[in-house]
Amino acid sequence: MIAAFAGLGPHFAAVERCMAAALVSEELRVEHLIADLGPFHGKLLRPALVLLVAETLGQVGAAHHTLGAALEMIHTATLIHDDLIDDSDQRRGAPSAHVRFGNTTAVLLGDYFYTHAFAIVAALDDPELMRRLTRVTNVICAGELHQQMAARDASVTEAEYDRIIYAKTACLTELAGVFGATGANDAQRAAAAAFGRSCGMAFQIADDCLDVAGDAAKVGKTLATDIERGRMTLPVIRWLAQGEAPAKAAHLLAATTPERVLAVRAEITASGAVASALATARHHVSVATAALAGLPPGQARDRLAELAAFIVSRDH
Amino acid sequence: MIAAFAGLGPHFAAVERCMAAALVSEELRVEHLIADLGPFHGKLLRPALVLLVAETLGQVGAAHHTLGAALEMIHTATLIHDDLIDDSDQRRGAPSAHVRFGNTTAVLLGDYFYTHAFAIVAALDDPELMRRLTRVTNVICAGELHQQMAARDASVTEAEYDRIIYAKTACLTELAGVFGATGANDAQRAAAAAFGRSCGMAFQIADDCLDVAGDAAKVGKTLATDIERGRMTLPVIRWLAQGEAPAKAAHLLAATTPERVLAVRAEITASGAVASALATARHHVSVATAALAGLPPGQARDRLAELAAFIVSRDH
Repeated sequence: MIAAFAGLGPHFAAVERCMAAALVSEELRVEHLIADLGPFHGKLLRPALVLLVAETLGQVGAAHHTLGAALEMIHTATLIHDDLIDDSDQRRGAPSAHVRFGNTTAVLLGDYFYTHAFAIVAALDDPELMRRLTRVTNVICAGELHQQMAARDASVTEAEYDRIIYAKTACLTELAGVFGATGANDAQRAAAAAFGRSCGMAFQIADDCLDVAGDAAKVGKTLATDIERGRMTLPVIRWLAQGEAPAKAAHLLAATTPERVLAVRAEITASGAVASALATARHHVSVATAALAGLPPGQARDRLAELAAFIVSRDH
Repeated sequence: MIAAFAGLGPHFAAVERCMAAALVSEELRVEHLIADLGPFHGKLLRPALVLLVAETLGQVGAAHHTLGAALEMIHTATLIHDDLIDDSDQRRGAPSAHVRFGNTTAVLLGDYFYTHAFAIVAALDDPELMRRLTRVTNVICAGELHQQMAARDASVTEAEYDRIIYAKTACLTELAGVFGATGANDAQRAAAAAFGRSCGMAFQIADDCLDVAGDAAKVGKTLATDIERGRMTLPVIRWLAQGEAPAKAAHLLAATTPERVLAVRAEITASGAVASALATARHHVSVATAALAGLPPGQARDRLAELAAFIVSRDH
């Protein structure tokens, strides 16, 4: 459990009940699959953002549990499809969905998580929430496609990388901030959005650094998939920018065996590019923390600051 | 062009404009992919249902174009994922999305179509439409998973088959009827729903018969994938029910080479099971046609009757 989540236990339990209730099926064969899947979700970072922002504003309600559950389910849908695409065998220290149930079922399970997330938000009967959620999921899917289309292209700039990680990660954490601030005034909602957005940027950069320099046993998932896929993440872009980019790019794109991937990982880490990327992640954390000034002070806001700090200190 | 669609040209053009506008991306790399994809949709059967029902009720509006576009996009999302899952190389006489763009992009493109479909309905700002759409997509995804979990199980009954095809096909055509009847009274909406539902049942049974007995050149897609996947479709269930089920099931499940698949296809067709399944499809068409009594008579209603009749007469 992440320290910043202390006290969220009962709320997390409510979020998990929302997810379990949403995913249930009347068809026995489907119900067995869902039961086999078990409590299949992530670190609950997105629900935590919703709940802590709502607590900061003194207004956690049942809708926040539903919204947190929906965001976690959307996130899980993208993870199931991502793991399949990347052929990542491990997720959260356990076999990925496609390893456990096969590729076909993983494609369909991802779709199942997506549509059920939309359904629980639709049931809240608030068109504005639904419009926000669908706009954001459009951006996420476009971001995933963008990342795919930009793979193996060494001309990807930091600006393009920023757009990709905003789309695939930070727009969902931004929405978590907005969902936490339903009922707040415009300035507070903007502060919560900015906090979520910068946390997401920091989180994705830290994640991209872990892919290059992390310890798979601690992270609990398959690493170096970005290198294998030829994705131009921030540490890679910074490494290429240090000079001899064409030779390095050739080296990177030839990293198709485990030995070559290891060699490239070591080279990028030794170049200082990972440290440089992490400094940028810390900058995003400081932007996030500054945005907290727009929310009421108190214990919940302190937890948000701790959460932001955790993002760049984690080794998993 | 299907004869029943005559006169829908301008409406179809509006539906296609809706889809094109929905799928556009500000990111150049994504925009290039979407442009490469071209006008990627099906027979427009679901938009045609929406539009003809709305015409029958004398009330086609811009919302019907949006709703038709959303249903076609949901349908297309499921087709992109289905073709990938089934490894069907052909769709509508052209290479499938995963053949053209790779498996990874096909998974993401399906997601992209799904979320953009939800987004255009969310923009209509009518919570009831959104609730209906999300409930139906839940049922579709559960139906796809159900079909997957029930594969290679010769104990699947006709009742279970009916539930699967209702979920994967008929609940979307039922919704097309309901979407066409927005603003109509309850009895008219129920009639439109019943018409759409029975058309969907008939359509899926006819499709399952084409998979066994169709001509791939005419159908324009890879056939016999159901047999290869061990799916218990109506012709297969009827064939097994004629006796010697264990031996036949063993034969069916061993059909993993093209030669064996051909032999099983010929055996099922020769048994009369395809003809028997098609008779059931025609029964659903007669139920659909009877439901039309609940809608105002006229040219548009006649077109709906023609559309229902086409479903079981088609060879593609």
